[in-house]
Amino acid sequence: MLTVFGTMALDTTRTPFRVEERILGGAATFASLSAGMFARTGMVAAIGEDMPLANIEAVRSKGVDTKGIVTVRGGKCFHYDSEFDYNLSSRTTLKTELNVIADFDPVIPEEYVKSEYVYLANNDPRQNMKILRHFEKPKLVVCDTIEYWIQTARDDVVKMIGKTDGVVINDSEARLLCNEVNIAKCARQIMSFGPRFAIIKKGEHGAVLFTREGEVFPAAAFFLDEISDPTGAGDSFAGGFLGHIARKDKIDFRTMKEAVIYGNVMGSFAVEDFGVRRLLAITKDDVEERYEKYRNLVQF
Amino acid sequence: MLTVFGTMALDTTRTPFRVEERILGGAATFASLSAGMFARTGMVAAIGEDMPLANIEAVRSKGVDTKGIVTVRGGKCFHYDSEFDYNLSSRTTLKTELNVIADFDPVIPEEYVKSEYVYLANNDPRQNMKILRHFEKPKLVVCDTIEYWIQTARDDVVKMIGKTDGVVINDSEARLLCNEVNIAKCARQIMSFGPRFAIIKKGEHGAVLFTREGEVFPAAAFFLDEISDPTGAGDSFAGGFLGHIARKDKIDFRTMKEAVIYGNVMGSFAVEDFGVRRLLAITKDDVEERYEKYRNLVQF
Repeated sequence: MLTVFGTMALDTTRTPFRVEERILGGAATFASLSAGMFARTGMVAAIGEDMPLANIEAVRSKGVDTKGIVTVRGGKCFHYDSEFDYNLSSRTTLKTELNVIADFDPVIPEEYVKSEYVYLANNDPRQNMKILRHFEKPKLVVCDTIEYWIQTARDDVVKMIGKTDGVVINDSEARLLCNEVNIAKCARQIMSFGPRFAIIKKGEHGAVLFTREGEVFPAAAFFLDEISDPTGAGDSFAGGFLGHIARKDKIDFRTMKEAVIYGNVMGSFAVEDFGVRRLLAITKDDVEERYEKYRNLVQF
Repeated sequence: MLTVFGTMALDTTRTPFRVEERILGGAATFASLSAGMFARTGMVAAIGEDMPLANIEAVRSKGVDTKGIVTVRGGKCFHYDSEFDYNLSSRTTLKTELNVIADFDPVIPEEYVKSEYVYLANNDPRQNMKILRHFEKPKLVVCDTIEYWIQTARDDVVKMIGKTDGVVINDSEARLLCNEVNIAKCARQIMSFGPRFAIIKKGEHGAVLFTREGEVFPAAAFFLDEISDPTGAGDSFAGGFLGHIARKDKIDFRTMKEAVIYGNVMGSFAVEDFGVRRLLAITKDDVEERYEKYRNLVQF
């Protein structure tokens, strides 16, 4: 089993072309829906009473176990309001209402305890370390982090990374964390904190996997003509990556490379519509079909 | 035969780690040395009397035909003085001395007239159109262009592109030329000017080939831990791309995809040392070896 811990949010997302208010989003939602295409996935997140039940139903309908979703009495959902520029490449935060996630003390359902695979999304690193203690003996723990935590709690971020086996992180955040421009050097620095591998995500330019053994795998992104909403691409990547590994139940380099491509594939689906809409619409066949399409695309 | 038209320059290149003054550079030098690894290549460029003979000898020693290099009496070489930032990603121009290239009226040696393949580097588009008339019936003409011409002579740039079969251009310049962010749309707009294909170069993120038939080939860059001097990567790419096509004497999609990889390979060599130093040092075996290394690297 794979457990994902992160946010289940209501997002207001504004692009120059469209505004969508209070749509289902959040790192855990994207990652769980993606991972759920591959393996049994449970989702841990705190929500408020304002979360429409239909959203939880939608996630469950895709096979994701939602027993880990905790509704905080009288609480309100994490709400993130942001606006993209014309390029859909730079995002301005208009409002971040932490609400129920601020003091969330994560617990996990009994049946998640034996999870072999764990994804800790870009939560407070202290919350991530806390939840980690609940798992019995995971085979692979992967985390992400973001600018906010690097700037306000860098020591905890480094400590958290030290408790994981792999990191999936944006290039800009890796550079900030490591105070280093070269992403290969960033990856090595991150691995020096403990993990055996680091994946540097480069948005539309794909991702590069680095392992402690010195292996490298650069992967171009799946090529899309149009994107609707870049939100959640990174978490969908992480979900696809871990999902494939959990499905194969193997952590060798070959499987990790395939997993990076599945990560790219899931990220490419996520951005085709607003919020998690596209992830809710696709089937396992769509995923395999795009994987093959990608294979043909990059072949020479 | 492949003819390259561009600059043979003396470059002063400054990085935070090293300064090299008046070293051999220029678009034609990079492109010719790269192309020369694959096919018979002639170089057309104007130089001044201050060009050390040893530089011409060096280029000739790699098999490049230098009969097209014109020494302008009393003239001085094109000299470009620039400085890279700590990331080696953004470059500041300190001095551009056009000298002999300002009013160069390009002519070509008689034996270049029958060239099947022609690369027009980022010259004045009017010079590029002028030289093109000298060729009898090239099978494939490819050009590049830069910000300066897009901003000062856009109409001529579009006209020049209309006379070529393919364009190899940086992403930022494609965006500027097309006033469009999405590079797929840029490529389609560029092809609407006339060419059958467009290659958008993305620096460390590789390149994407688009054809008029709607084919797409995204290629991650060859992965390098360290780079010394990014100068000439784009022209080395173009030289490797056209060189491979000339060697195969085929212009189908499969050959173009291989050519993109050879372009990446040549670009990756170019940046490993200052100026053209690395291109002067490598052998054909080194090129094939890196091509195979790249193939293994991106395989999954």
